[in-house]
Amino acid sequence: MLNKPSMLANAMSGLDSPSAKHVVAIDVMSGDGGLPVIMGGVRRVLARRQDVHLLLVGDADAIEASLKSDPIADGLVTVVPATEVVTMDDSPAVAIRNKKQSSMRLAINLVKEGGAAACVSAGNTGALMAISKFVLKTVPGIDRPAISTTLPAIGGHTHMLDLGANVDCTAQHLFQFATMGSILTEAVDGIASPKIGLLNIGSEATKGNEQVKEAAPLLIDSSLNYIGFVEGTDIYTDKVDVVVCDGFVGNVSLKTSEGVARLVSHSLKQEFKASVWNNLVGFFARPILQSFGDRIDPRRYNGASLLGLQGVVIKSHGSADQLAFANAIDIALLEIALGVPDMIRSRLDAKVACTS
Amino acid sequence: MLNKPSMLANAMSGLDSPSAKHVVAIDVMSGDGGLPVIMGGVRRVLARRQDVHLLLVGDADAIEASLKSDPIADGLVTVVPATEVVTMDDSPAVAIRNKKQSSMRLAINLVKEGGAAACVSAGNTGALMAISKFVLKTVPGIDRPAISTTLPAIGGHTHMLDLGANVDCTAQHLFQFATMGSILTEAVDGIASPKIGLLNIGSEATKGNEQVKEAAPLLIDSSLNYIGFVEGTDIYTDKVDVVVCDGFVGNVSLKTSEGVARLVSHSLKQEFKASVWNNLVGFFARPILQSFGDRIDPRRYNGASLLGLQGVVIKSHGSADQLAFANAIDIALLEIALGVPDMIRSRLDAKVACTS
Repeated sequence: MLNKPSMLANAMSGLDSPSAKHVVAIDVMSGDGGLPVIMGGVRRVLARRQDVHLLLVGDADAIEASLKSDPIADGLVTVVPATEVVTMDDSPAVAIRNKKQSSMRLAINLVKEGGAAACVSAGNTGALMAISKFVLKTVPGIDRPAISTTLPAIGGHTHMLDLGANVDCTAQHLFQFATMGSILTEAVDGIASPKIGLLNIGSEATKGNEQVKEAAPLLIDSSLNYIGFVEGTDIYTDKVDVVVCDGFVGNVSLKTSEGVARLVSHSLKQEFKASVWNNLVGFFARPILQSFGDRIDPRRYNGASLLGLQGVVIKSHGSADQLAFANAIDIALLEIALGVPDMIRSRLDAKVACTS
Repeated sequence: MLNKPSMLANAMSGLDSPSAKHVVAIDVMSGDGGLPVIMGGVRRVLARRQDVHLLLVGDADAIEASLKSDPIADGLVTVVPATEVVTMDDSPAVAIRNKKQSSMRLAINLVKEGGAAACVSAGNTGALMAISKFVLKTVPGIDRPAISTTLPAIGGHTHMLDLGANVDCTAQHLFQFATMGSILTEAVDGIASPKIGLLNIGSEATKGNEQVKEAAPLLIDSSLNYIGFVEGTDIYTDKVDVVVCDGFVGNVSLKTSEGVARLVSHSLKQEFKASVWNNLVGFFARPILQSFGDRIDPRRYNGASLLGLQGVVIKSHGSADQLAFANAIDIALLEIALGVPDMIRSRLDAKVACTS
């Protein structure tokens, strides 16, 4: 156990071939399910991968107790003690000013100091974004980081941003989100020119609020593969690869989707319980419905990227279970492997070089 | 057949006990499915109800041909010729200025002149809203009409407005939408004090854009049963009866829901086609899945109210089929029976009287 996170980078360099390991700082004091869920997610990842070292940042006694009851092999995890917790009620300002020893802050500090290549938290989104921006700063050319996630779609999947980091956005912000979304999608999905759509309430140029109307010409004049305005119905299709919107609209859209999914799940269960016959059919249909559920399982898509920071920060859904949290760690590992922040920085530099 | 809509009111007064009939003007030149769908919807309603008289506004030759091939009993419909059509590409301004003989305009004129108590159209939403506002005007105390619809929810249903009429809204507009939504829900659902929620990206007072933050205190200080901020996940639950938002957010949320529903439907079908066994199970599960589909069938919820006008105007989804379009006519008939515009006017008058 280490007493100061600043000692961590040194400690890490003492590991066997540390350079070959992807080091991720995990905010274990986050999420509705608490330590058991986070540790469960950690164990799932480590059961699959040996090229990973996870820094467990949080209540050291609790983490040690968990490790004692269910040990993890040497060299896979390091406990980093944190004495404070950012709660869901803490405002971003309070979290930055008053919670300097919180698990969230220390996990982000580790990324800044080079002790970890990424940080994963299931905690307060506003605080995570504010601390990340304060500590890590944004990539030059990006004013505000955006929250991006992957969503299931007919014929593949879609990336969408911003999902709640930026409530009021200018056209320039939307343009920056589009640029980052394009770079991420190109890297993650291996698509040469991802189709970029601006979320609007109609496809005609006269439709929409001022921001989207002003953002459209910026995108038309850019080198991005901008396909025009898209609507809510298009998010879950292969018409578009990257859906760009402000954080208010994106968050409402994402949570509306969750609401519909719950209604569907509830209604399906009700129907298959409606009679003895339905129950019987339901017995045989269960594996099929399970497979259907897996297709659109939000847990498979858990893990939103805070894009535009000088470091990889992944936000897990607060209600994530072990499988979902493990998925968020996987996304962090993928972004480390791809070098997403450097990719965004170098592509923006190249763009500036081209146009100047 | 009548050659001038202004003659219509006179003609209507010549019907047998016209006062007992609910008269609705139908814009038959609207919707993706064209005349066959609209006429199919008309026939479905008339097969169920004898207390209705429908004014079929549009291409008289085409309507007469439809009536000739499949007659409707005397006294149930009247053909009102219109020589123009508002297209989906017409801007609201063009529709108002240049399409004075369109089926949409004449149908709304009929409401204004008293020839009809309501108008139903599956046409261009922006044009329908603009012409309705221009011809019918808003109820005193309401600055802008809002589009409101009913949505299925776990444990009942929810009303939501605005769904696209007003892209940029002030806090005062949101407050007016809440008031209208409350009055409508009280009337339609017979709920004494409908629960009003303001759509936001979190439940804390610090969350959201300026409009919702400013609208919250107006609602708290009102006599409405305001329950606070609600999120996208709450729309499809019984936590809230009326969800209030600006038209941009509401439209994206509604269309996102459609997108998720299509993804679910597509994925379910794929799973039940995945193997011979799945196909067999699917055969037995079909009635159950059909019943599930019926529960959340968007056609059952087709027909959005343009609330706040001095008259009943109902917008059908452009892609409505016969069943869905018939539902939109049913909603018009319900709002006529309840006297929704008068109810909003008198309740707003009472409110002004109380507070002055």
